[in-house]
Order: sequence, then structure tokens, then C-alpha cells
Amino acid sequence: MTILTVERRGAVAHLTMNAPERLNALSDEMLAALQTTLDDFANDATTRVITLAGTGKAFCAGHDLRQMTAMRQNPDGGAAAFKDLFDRCTAVMTRIQTLPQPVIAQVHGLATAAGCQLVATCDLAVATDSCRFGVNGVNIGLFCSTPMVALTRNITRKQAFEMLTTGEFISAERAVDLGLINKAVPEADLASATAALAERIAGKLGPAVRIGKEAFYQQLEMSTAQAYAFAGDVMVQNMLRNDTKEGIDAFLEKRPPDWSQD
Amino acid sequence: MTILTVERRGAVAHLTMNAPERLNALSDEMLAALQTTLDDFANDATTRVITLAGTGKAFCAGHDLRQMTAMRQNPDGGAAAFKDLFDRCTAVMTRIQTLPQPVIAQVHGLATAAGCQLVATCDLAVATDSCRFGVNGVNIGLFCSTPMVALTRNITRKQAFEMLTTGEFISAERAVDLGLINKAVPEADLASATAALAERIAGKLGPAVRIGKEAFYQQLEMSTAQAYAFAGDVMVQNMLRNDTKEGIDAFLEKRPPDWSQD
Amino acid sequence: MTILTVERRGAVAHLTMNAPERLNALSDEMLAALQTTLDDFANDATTRVITLAGTGKAFCAGHDLRQMTAMRQNPDGGAAAFKDLFDRCTAVMTRIQTLPQPVIAQVHGLATAAGCQLVATCDLAVATDSCRFGVNGVNIGLFCSTPMVALTRNITRKQAFEMLTTGEFISAERAVDLGLINKAVPEADLASATAALAERIAGKLGPAVRIGKEAFYQQLEMSTAQAYAFAGDVMVQNMLRNDTKEGIDAFLEKRPPDWSQD
Repeated sequence: MTILTVERRGAVAHLTMNAPERLNALSDEMLAALQTTLDDFANDATTRVITLAGTGKAFCAGHDLRQMTAMRQNPDGGAAAFKDLFDRCTAVMTRIQTLPQPVIAQVHGLATAAGCQLVATCDLAVATDSCRFGVNGVNIGLFCSTPMVALTRNITRKQAFEMLTTGEFISAERAVDLGLINKAVPEADLASATAALAERIAGKLGPAVRIGKEAFYQQLEMSTAQAYAFAGDVMVQNMLRNDTKEGIDAFLEKRPPDWSQD
Repeated sequence: MTILTVERRGAVAHLTMNAPERLNALSDEMLAALQTTLDDFANDATTRVITLAGTGKAFCAGHDLRQMTAMRQNPDGGAAAFKDLFDRCTAVMTRIQTLPQPVIAQVHGLATAAGCQLVATCDLAVATDSCRFGVNGVNIGLFCSTPMVALTRNITRKQAFEMLTTGEFISAERAVDLGLINKAVPEADLASATAALAERIAGKLGPAVRIGKEAFYQQLEMSTAQAYAFAGDVMVQNMLRNDTKEGIDAFLEKRPPDWSQD
Repeated sequence: MTILTVERRGAVAHLTMNAPERLNALSDEMLAALQTTLDDFANDATTRVITLAGTGKAFCAGHDLRQMTAMRQNPDGGAAAFKDLFDRCTAVMTRIQTLPQPVIAQVHGLATAAGCQLVATCDLAVATDSCRFGVNGVNIGLFCSTPMVALTRNITRKQAFEMLTTGEFISAERAVDLGLINKAVPEADLASATAALAERIAGKLGPAVRIGKEAFYQQLEMSTAQAYAFAGDVMVQNMLRNDTKEGIDAFLEKRPPDWSQD
């Protein structure tokens, strides 16, 4: 049994976290598997979209508290190990957004603490309508500071503050309203709805999606003027591609594009 | 037939893009007309609010793909011309937000790609409830990178990412929920609802609105502490105006202000 | 009669602005009382959550226009006094967000201009469902530039621009949808709902909430990469606390934590 399974269906890779007895916690092993697997996709030109799901009762319940507690036995009380853990976790989150492929979270059951951060970090998220989301570390005395970074870049301030300080869960419907996820579907439709979204994006011109995802996060951190200068250059490079020429020619000639070389 | 008509009704100028056969695409001619016309308003103290509509089936369908395709014949494959085009487009978008007058998009039919960017860029937007919005360049291999700059400064990240990578359209109702537009109205009411909003703002003290619009976009790019220092100075200057004194005096004396000199 | 009353109930301090004849305007006296009282809480380890309400018909109607008008008699026409006033107001707003305790606005009737800014500035807000919110200074010729700083950091751009330039009020329901407040409740339930939210947060480990609130606003002004580096360090320090160890141990041992030393 591997902790992270990969199933390729055409241009879509379906990843599944598989540690149901730990509610797919972001243990040392899970973080390592995610990092290695996602890194591999960075150079995989045949994979255009990635989905990320979990087996068992929960999508992901955050950090592995037993492993973290064991680190307290270190001579420094765990300080260096905790630092290293949060660095590794941040590296996985950063990897998701710097991958050329869009990553879609396929969420069911629970997404809590760093598991909720994972949902917030993925480019897109589809969830079951019974799913619940929380950044509930405060309930055990550990404020969800790193999940907060992702959460507050997805939803409004007061709603994020409430979730972080009350530790209460929100419903999938509320998560849609706030912008934390893209859509909520009946449990029976979760896999198909996620796959359909993935296929839809995989059907676009691959390099255009890659160009766009890369620019998306970069321009968000710029002033508007800087962002326009940057995005203008990105569009020029996009226009100069042969496959984009084919796409536009096909549109003007009212025929489907021939992107077979893409 | 002019490509951009201007109708002045009191303190409100109603602009209408008039290239219905091209779905009001942002062609070289349209961009030039918008730039020239908007620049003129920068020094027009009698116009307090501007509305921007379109004739025909669509508000605006984005860039003119035929003109862009023709640029490919240039010795450099169009690189310099594309760069120049996006610079001109950005200049129009920037002009809208740096104008002293609020600009209200009056949107019907379709607002796609740079047309959707135009909606996102205007200070306010009213649309028909049947109107649809998309940043659908990805469908023809040209990711909407510059529209993304405006879109992501209006709506939440995952919803923007979905629109950009799926190329799918959203309804006017969804656009209201996301914050892309201010309100959706029945088609028969579009012109009157937009004009009513414009008149309401035109009825305020002109300099106060100008002061506020200028400060609005500037403070958004500052840290909170910088923004407060800046906005505090703006309010001092606002308070020192004679017409503001008259407005406050009138309020305290429970009478309408005499802003006839304004 | 004091202009700002403080009632302590356990770990929650309930503050009430008490100048109903002035609609709890942010007069010189009110600002001074707020600043002094809030400053005192900065070093009060026994108070974990603060609520802020108002007596009379309105939560807060913004600045005291009579006092501001009197400042015009100064030799400089009020320039220095206006500057000083906005500085003092900003200091109170900043103090709310830099306090170690979460501050919950308990809002009824009206919250206008700097009163609406106060709602936007508090970490959380509960309001009556009949309450209305406006940044309506534009109606008297004084654009709400400083309230804008807080408002635009809470809600989407077009909706903020509309409120600021039309001076129109929004309902509590709309304020929830936009993210300006956390929830709207029937008038009879306002005090109890606010107190319940305060008690819920006060029941968490105090230092964890303090750590979190401090990090919340700091990381919002950083790039994502900086925010992660910062938040990672915050979490390491949080993990190294004995009371956090107790919280995690208790969770793993399926027993309630003993935070009696906290």
C-alpha cells in the first residue's frame, strides 16, 4: 500500500492520499510523497491537469500530531524539527502553485487545519456538499498560523478571523459562498464532477494554461501597474506561439483548431 | 457613423461603443477613440459621471482578432505590434481609473476577454440580467493574461482561476455575487438604471467625488498604515474646501446645501 | 455618566459607547476614552476578548461634525486640528487591530462614516438584522476617505466604490454577504449572540489567540512567500509553549486539556 497513489487517465493525473487510518494527515511520509510526486510532474509535459483526493473518512486532517509530539524528545524540545516540518509543508504548498499544471482538490468528509490549507492552496476545489472545513488548531492551543496564509488569500477577513479564532467548521455551501472552493456536489458525483472539470481544462491548449497559471500568482503580488506591464509581455509571448496562431486562425475560419502537435 | 458616440445629459456623459458588426471589439480604432475621448474628460469640469455602453448584440467581445492576425505579417511576426497593442489597451484601462469622474459600465449581451476586463476596470457596472461574462481567450489558445489583472482585483482567486482556465461564462447573477458588477436589471431597465446611478452620483458635491475616486485606487496599493496616513491628509484637504464647509453647515442646520457655485 | 462604560464578565470585557444624544459620535471625548481604555487592555492578561457596543438609537454615527466645525475658527482654518483629529481616530482604529484581544463590534441601528469604519476595523462584528451601514460622508461633501481604508480591506472593490460615491446604506443581510460583518441576528438576540461569540473565543487557550491575532494582520501585508516564512516561525514558537503541549497531549489522549495555569 502506497501512501500516495497516482492514476493517469489521458492528460489528467489523479492523485489520492492514502493514509485513511490517519485521516490523510500531512505526516513526514505524506509530505515527502507529495513533494516527490508533484516535483516529478513539473517536467511532465503529457500531464495537463492534476487532481488531489483522499481515501477514507476525511480529505485531510492537517499535521500529524503524534509525529510532532515525538519531536519534543529532541534536545532542543523540537524547535529545529518543528521549523523543518513547517518548511517542508510550505514547500509542498508552494510547489502546488508553481507547478505548470492546474491542481484541483477533490474534497470530502473533512478538511481541517493544514488540510484546509491544502484546499485553499490548490488552484481549484470541488467538494461534496456534506464536507466541512475548519482551521481548528486553536481548539488544541495551536493557532493555524500557516493555514491562515492560504485562507486569508482566498476569503474575506472577518470570515477568516472567525474561523481561526472560534475553531468552528463551515459547510461546503458556505465555503462556496466565501470563495474557498469552486463548487459543492452530491457525494456520488464528486469524482465525476472533479474529473469533468479536469478534462475541460485538459482540453484547452496546454501551453496557454501553463502560461496563464504561472502569470496568475505572479501578478497577484504586484501593483496594478507592474501587473499590467508583466501581463502584457506574457500575452505577447503567448501570441507568438504557433499553436496560438492556429487557435485564432481556426476561430476566425469557424473550424476546430488542429492542436495535434501540441 | 462614429465608432464612439458621446451624449451629454447635464453632468453625465453617456458614451456608446458603436461597432456592432465587430461586437464592439477593442480594435485600433476603438482604443484610439476611447483614449482620446476619455482624455478629453480629464479636464472637463462640467462632466461628473461617465457611462460606457455598447450598441448591438454585445457590450464588448475583447480584442480584434483579425487586426491582431494581420500584425503577424510584420517582419518580427507581430511582436512589436502586439506589445504596442497591449500597451494601448492598458493605457485605456488605466485612464478609466485615473479619470476624475466615476465611470459606470452599462453592460448587455456579452462581455468577453478584454471586454470583461473593461467591465472589471470601470468603477461601477450595471448589467442586464441576461448578460454573460467570460475571460475565454484560453478557448482559442490565448490566455486572458491582461484581463486577469483586472479580474483578480475584483473577485476571489479560485473563481477567477476557474473562469480563466475553463473559458466558461458566468451569469449576471453570479457576477453580482462575485463582485464583478454592482447590479443586474431586466433588459428594459438597463439604460434607466445606469442613468439613475450616474445621476445619483452626479448629484453629490463634484470635488468630493473626485477627491474620493483618486484616493480610492491609490490607497488600495498601500500598506494599511501608509493608506491611513495618506487618507488622513486627503480628508484634511477635503475639510478645508468652502463647498464642504457649506455641506456640513447645511447638514447641521437641517437645510439643503447651496452648492450652486460648485 | 461616563462616555464609555466597561463591564467585565469573566474573561470578556464589554465596552459600551454612551453618548446616545450624539449617536455615539467619535468626538474628542469618545476618541480619548476609547484610546485610554483600549490601551489599558493591552497589558491586561485576564481579559481575553473585548466587545464594543453603543447605547441609544445608533451604534456610531462617525465624527462629531459640531466639534469639527468649531475647529474652523482656528487661525489656520482648522487644518492642524483636522490633521490631529484624523491622526487620533487612526490611532484608535490601529489600536483595535494591535490589541492582543479580539475585538467584536456589537452593532445596532446605524453605523455610518467613521462608525462604519469602526465596524470594518473590529476583528469581528455581530449586528441586528435591522441595522444599516453607510459611508455617507459624500452626501455632505466630505468623502469618507479614512473609512475607505478599512472598508476596502473588508469588501470587494465595486461594492465599496458604490457605497462611497452614492452614500447609500446597505442592510445587515447585505453586509453579511459582502463580508463587512460576521452575522446578523434579531434585535433581541444581539447582546447574547455577541456574548456567546466572545465566550467561545475566550474559552480557547489565550496565548494561542493572542499569537494568532498578532500574526493575522502582519502576514496580510506580506507577499505569500514572506508570510509563510513568518507564519512558520510563529507556529514554532506556538508549539514550544507548555500549554500548547498540554492541549495537544490532551487531544491525543482524548481528554480535556488542563489549562488552569493559562
